[in-house]
Amino acid sequence: MSTLPSTVKIVEVGPRDGLQNESQTIPTAVKIKLIELLTDAGLNYIEAGSFVNPKWVPQMADSDQVFQGINRRPNTTYAALTPNMQGYQRAMAAGANEVAIFAAASESFSQKNINCSIQESLNRFAPILAAAQQAQIPVRGYISCVAGCPYEGAVSATAVADIAEQLFTLGCYEISLGDTIGVGTPGQITELIARCKQRLPVSKLAVHFHDTYGQALANIYAALLAGVNVVDSSIAGLGGCPYAKGASGNIATEDVLYMLNGLNIASGVKLDKLLTAGHYISEFLQRPSGSKVANAKSR
Amino acid sequence: MSTLPSTVKIVEVGPRDGLQNESQTIPTAVKIKLIELLTDAGLNYIEAGSFVNPKWVPQMADSDQVFQGINRRPNTTYAALTPNMQGYQRAMAAGANEVAIFAAASESFSQKNINCSIQESLNRFAPILAAAQQAQIPVRGYISCVAGCPYEGAVSATAVADIAEQLFTLGCYEISLGDTIGVGTPGQITELIARCKQRLPVSKLAVHFHDTYGQALANIYAALLAGVNVVDSSIAGLGGCPYAKGASGNIATEDVLYMLNGLNIASGVKLDKLLTAGHYISEFLQRPSGSKVANAKSR
Repeated sequence: MSTLPSTVKIVEVGPRDGLQNESQTIPTAVKIKLIELLTDAGLNYIEAGSFVNPKWVPQMADSDQVFQGINRRPNTTYAALTPNMQGYQRAMAAGANEVAIFAAASESFSQKNINCSIQESLNRFAPILAAAQQAQIPVRGYISCVAGCPYEGAVSATAVADIAEQLFTLGCYEISLGDTIGVGTPGQITELIARCKQRLPVSKLAVHFHDTYGQALANIYAALLAGVNVVDSSIAGLGGCPYAKGASGNIATEDVLYMLNGLNIASGVKLDKLLTAGHYISEFLQRPSGSKVANAKSR
Repeated sequence: MSTLPSTVKIVEVGPRDGLQNESQTIPTAVKIKLIELLTDAGLNYIEAGSFVNPKWVPQMADSDQVFQGINRRPNTTYAALTPNMQGYQRAMAAGANEVAIFAAASESFSQKNINCSIQESLNRFAPILAAAQQAQIPVRGYISCVAGCPYEGAVSATAVADIAEQLFTLGCYEISLGDTIGVGTPGQITELIARCKQRLPVSKLAVHFHDTYGQALANIYAALLAGVNVVDSSIAGLGGCPYAKGASGNIATEDVLYMLNGLNIASGVKLDKLLTAGHYISEFLQRPSGSKVANAKSR
């Protein structure tokens, strides 16, 4: 019988991976308020913004102001996505505690998403990793399409493990395995993590699952059984991927927390306050929450 | 490492547990068409109706006509819920292949749902079991509130195992464990099934989960890992329980099948045809499907 971890770190990606996909403009003050409500709930790792070219992702154009406007809590990490050195420098100027870089597990997705091959993308991140190491800034690595690609279909677990190992070797302290289009099922995730564990310690792995096909929570449970204890999620299930056909929102943080609580896995997050944060952003966006727990509790 | 079953029987409860909760009237012809589309997809066990007092459940008042109107497929079971001997006799007259009886795992729910104690409900079913045995009609047993009760809160796994054993001893060939209000999480389900396995063979257990808190598919995965190989589900996630506060729909058959397919577990059901059945009833009801797979595929 597999054993479950006793604690899990929840990486809240709603303010970045969630809000970057909204078509309506989100005022900077709303983003700041959301982040503060999330840290009020006990989340101590927030991906707060992205320093990409605003032409590509206009929703994140105000990340500088977001980082500078947050009333920072102690022992809390405010991380930023950084695609290149300019982004890294902007993130540092804005006071990000950590940065994240990203590669795809499929060549087609890499080309369509960031316009270069997987290997070119890894090479492009080398200067960020060098600079971050010098500045003692931790770097997180994302891998997208770990369970399938919208253009190529199947993605091999070995290809994912190769990239995970490369990101780890390059200096990423944690590798987040993203099922960008939500196509994975629990057996596949179990196999994927087993493959990755042959290359790097399981303590260096995180999972980042979208709920497009309703499988995300079952997949997270499979990952926990395989020893993973870092889970990315998004308040109210915000998000998706504008470049991936059929990619609906991330798994909702509320639903992950409900499961962790039921499993007696400590996360330090309080459900009632988390629901407050989810309610705030759902009200602002004027649409029902993507969290089943939030909807059940609000009846 | 737990092993998964190689085949799973899907018990389709949408035409009964799903449609009984609809506020709008569903014409008999629509029910019949839905059932035929479901069997077209390869489902060979359909809970097609309920012979309860129409004053309580008006949506099922036409179950006689439904059973009589179906174009029956070979090797397919058309089952009926029967609360008492009158219901049993109506089900037999209508040509049901199997009947199902039901008990609650919580006294308060038993009182509020069927107006008697758990023990009284079991006694009440004894004549049905005797008659069915004589007529060689298999009887399925449902237990509701196995993971929690809307009135009492926690429900002990031992209480559930006690009732499962009693239903088995009374002659039920299969016991379906219902998380009526969808509050369970995978560790609890693992524990519950372990407890039940001490009393009766795991091959006699089925799971029947509602997705109120988004946990149903993770719970089904936990049940499969524990050796269960019968899963109740409802096309398009139809259903809920009118007596249980906050009980949203059953887990969608489409989403269960997607997971089973990913796990290489054979069920004999074809996803494309299943989506057709779900689309048919969602169109009729004029609302989005409760299946994430259906929604992802229709984009």
